[in-house]
Amino acid sequence: MRRTALFLVLAAFTATGIAAERSTSIPASALTAAATLRDKALADDTGWKTIESLTTEVGPRLAGSEGDARAVEWAKAKFRQLGYDKVWTEPVTFPKWVRRSEHGEVLGAHSQKLALTALGGSPGGTVEGEVVRFPDLAALQAAPAGSLAGKIAFVDFQMQRKKDGGDYRFGGGIRGGGPSAASAKGAIAFVMRSAGTDSHRVPHTGMTRFADGAKPIPSAALSIPDADQLARLAALGATRIRVALDCGFDGEYTSQNVIGEITGSKRPDEVVLIGGHLDSWDHGTGAIDDAAGVAITMATGALLKPLKPARTIRVVAFANEEQGLWGGRAYADKYAKDVAKHVIAAESDFGAGHIYGFDSSARDAQPEALKQIMQVLSPLGIEWLPKQGDPESDIGPLTQRGMAWAWLGHDGTNYFDLHHNADDTLDKIDPKDLAQNVAAYVVFTYLAAQADGGFGSAPKAPETKN
Amino acid sequence: MRRTALFLVLAAFTATGIAAERSTSIPASALTAAATLRDKALADDTGWKTIESLTTEVGPRLAGSEGDARAVEWAKAKFRQLGYDKVWTEPVTFPKWVRRSEHGEVLGAHSQKLALTALGGSPGGTVEGEVVRFPDLAALQAAPAGSLAGKIAFVDFQMQRKKDGGDYRFGGGIRGGGPSAASAKGAIAFVMRSAGTDSHRVPHTGMTRFADGAKPIPSAALSIPDADQLARLAALGATRIRVALDCGFDGEYTSQNVIGEITGSKRPDEVVLIGGHLDSWDHGTGAIDDAAGVAITMATGALLKPLKPARTIRVVAFANEEQGLWGGRAYADKYAKDVAKHVIAAESDFGAGHIYGFDSSARDAQPEALKQIMQVLSPLGIEWLPKQGDPESDIGPLTQRGMAWAWLGHDGTNYFDLHHNADDTLDKIDPKDLAQNVAAYVVFTYLAAQADGGFGSAPKAPETKN
Repeated sequence: MRRTALFLVLAAFTATGIAAERSTSIPASALTAAATLRDKALADDTGWKTIESLTTEVGPRLAGSEGDARAVEWAKAKFRQLGYDKVWTEPVTFPKWVRRSEHGEVLGAHSQKLALTALGGSPGGTVEGEVVRFPDLAALQAAPAGSLAGKIAFVDFQMQRKKDGGDYRFGGGIRGGGPSAASAKGAIAFVMRSAGTDSHRVPHTGMTRFADGAKPIPSAALSIPDADQLARLAALGATRIRVALDCGFDGEYTSQNVIGEITGSKRPDEVVLIGGHLDSWDHGTGAIDDAAGVAITMATGALLKPLKPARTIRVVAFANEEQGLWGGRAYADKYAKDVAKHVIAAESDFGAGHIYGFDSSARDAQPEALKQIMQVLSPLGIEWLPKQGDPESDIGPLTQRGMAWAWLGHDGTNYFDLHHNADDTLDKIDPKDLAQNVAAYVVFTYLAAQADGGFGSAPKAPETKN
Repeated sequence: MRRTALFLVLAAFTATGIAAERSTSIPASALTAAATLRDKALADDTGWKTIESLTTEVGPRLAGSEGDARAVEWAKAKFRQLGYDKVWTEPVTFPKWVRRSEHGEVLGAHSQKLALTALGGSPGGTVEGEVVRFPDLAALQAAPAGSLAGKIAFVDFQMQRKKDGGDYRFGGGIRGGGPSAASAKGAIAFVMRSAGTDSHRVPHTGMTRFADGAKPIPSAALSIPDADQLARLAALGATRIRVALDCGFDGEYTSQNVIGEITGSKRPDEVVLIGGHLDSWDHGTGAIDDAAGVAITMATGALLKPLKPARTIRVVAFANEEQGLWGGRAYADKYAKDVAKHVIAAESDFGAGHIYGFDSSARDAQPEALKQIMQVLSPLGIEWLPKQGDPESDIGPLTQRGMAWAWLGHDGTNYFDLHHNADDTLDKIDPKDLAQNVAAYVVFTYLAAQADGGFGSAPKAPETKN
């Protein structure tokens, strides 16, 4: 409680821009131990065995599905098997969305099937109509009111490969905002070029959410080659398609955040939080999204245990990230009053590519401690990249309430080849990269646990989302 | 008729190993004209426009489907549009096989869907059983009689990438012979790792044929990642799966070989035959297999026309290659008595990768003429590769009756990533490679048409297939 009070005071200083926080430093012995453990982690297969187990034995685990329930049991058992000191679950309740079937086809003289998949949150329905193609979301939004009455909007934007996945703001933006925009113009359905960078017949699903007052319409993503094809056909002349989706919301479901702890040997009430999300989309086995994050962080705790870290290492396998950060929000609600006890947090939810960058919310307040961590991360090929990171997904809600965060940035060049599609399977994971990921998490997590001082976690009112 | 008699005599010499055929040579003016046309072809987009048109406007064209019928109409119209002098069709009748639906799943504690596709020729049926894994066809064949009673055979052989696609003899062999072998041991179904080299959730279909007396059983190919997954699950313990196929033979269908000719200006009765096959499997749009071959050879005739070739250039878009060379066999039956009129033939049915090699059945009898052709092919990066080529697919039946052939070998390194699966779409064609393919065909076809003398076509009794 003393510590919490201290952080509150420090937070006030930080909020006014005065860097008055006590300088955190990491004991030399911890740096040495972290370097040894880093090298051990590079040769360790705990992460690989964990991701193999989850993706093979559970497979797909759409939130609310039977796979979701099995994943929860799997995570509890795996935490115990890996020697975690405490294992428990916390309920997460959300609307259950189900996918039953989906078909698309071109009608008329050029009739042929289209590989498409319903967007999460889409209602079911079978409609036929002429396609109206838009190069991007802005073009759809600029369409005259009522101009899409009886028609099917097609947003045909191609994401580009980026190391930081930056183009997802466009692809994800279309998926999130396109259906409502199309509905507002009178469209009877919405299709989009998948938010992806591959060239395979595996459409990328993902959540959409209809704006207040927008009439939900069947909404789907075409595979990249199918979007190419539809664009060519539309260029030849008026093109009618059929979109037949059997899917929709079906009551509520309660899943679980599954939590494992390595209890701190000296400051058990202070937590270094790491994790990934346990749910996946249904087409693949969720290897990169996000069995990787679950495996990397579960392995991190297991590898750290013999060192008896000073602070508690808490690993969370979050429920239902995919459909709206349900697990992360439930966690933030439950621990809102414990922000200061969360010394710092990092989530792995961007695949298992080589980790190349490090950043933290503490970049201005605690540069020395971060520099010390970087010393041990650097041999892994990781650079200090201030202001290039962000808290990933599920830890976001609690960072909005003041929790400090770190970012261990994965190379995402190929991430959107696989994101939310059927190709997200174990064979896409490079065991060497995964071991490097675990090594990076081990270094960060251990040093955060041993640091003499904190990283700026202090309660604040969450910002209003826009 | 004089010429036919001559060839008969020459064939007799060739058969006894005596190289007594008159030496064929190609006029210097033709070599010069071929070089000019080669370079023009490299900058020409007739091939690209043709493949784009077929794959976009028709799309998939499974033999016997509505797409097949549309493809026939497309080919007739395209030949005419490209300025061919004669265009006609010849009927090809075959048993019609239809695919309605297909599902696979793992049952029990690790339940999850499996991406699989029925093999062409498979009967329908829904069965559940324990998987018995075999590393290859020989292992299945060595299983004790009756040992698979009530079980599902799984042949888990992984093809390797080869420039010449050589590993297909294993993958294709499993597809052809595996179902009968499994049935003979009592299996209730057969599944195989797709005969492919990709890593995507797109299973590779293709024809199987049950041996005389073998009870047909539902037979399917798993995608490569699904085969990985099933192998891992089977290694964990007894694994039951469900295979549900709705497919099978449904009467007969008559499609058409579609033929276009550029009539020879000097020897119209002598034919240089080139072609590809018009049908495709149903999952993709058959871009590499074999819209490419159709487009390359259609473009070749169109580009040659202004040169008024001495011999007739005959381009055949063969019907139903995929289900057993039906078009090629019908052609051979119809033209059995005209072998000698077919001066030489080449088919393009191995995608649209860079053509890297040239070979011919005339390698021993007409080395000089082939050397001349090689002079003009060589700047395209093509090597003389004696005894490395074969007549491709549909021209095979007539070469067995004595027709001379040439081989313009495509680099097939990536061919089995796409072969017979949903990913076989236009975006996989490199327009520059396609133009190189057309350039190579233009050179070969023109020089064969201008050659002073033949390449050894002479009727012989076809060898008995084993």
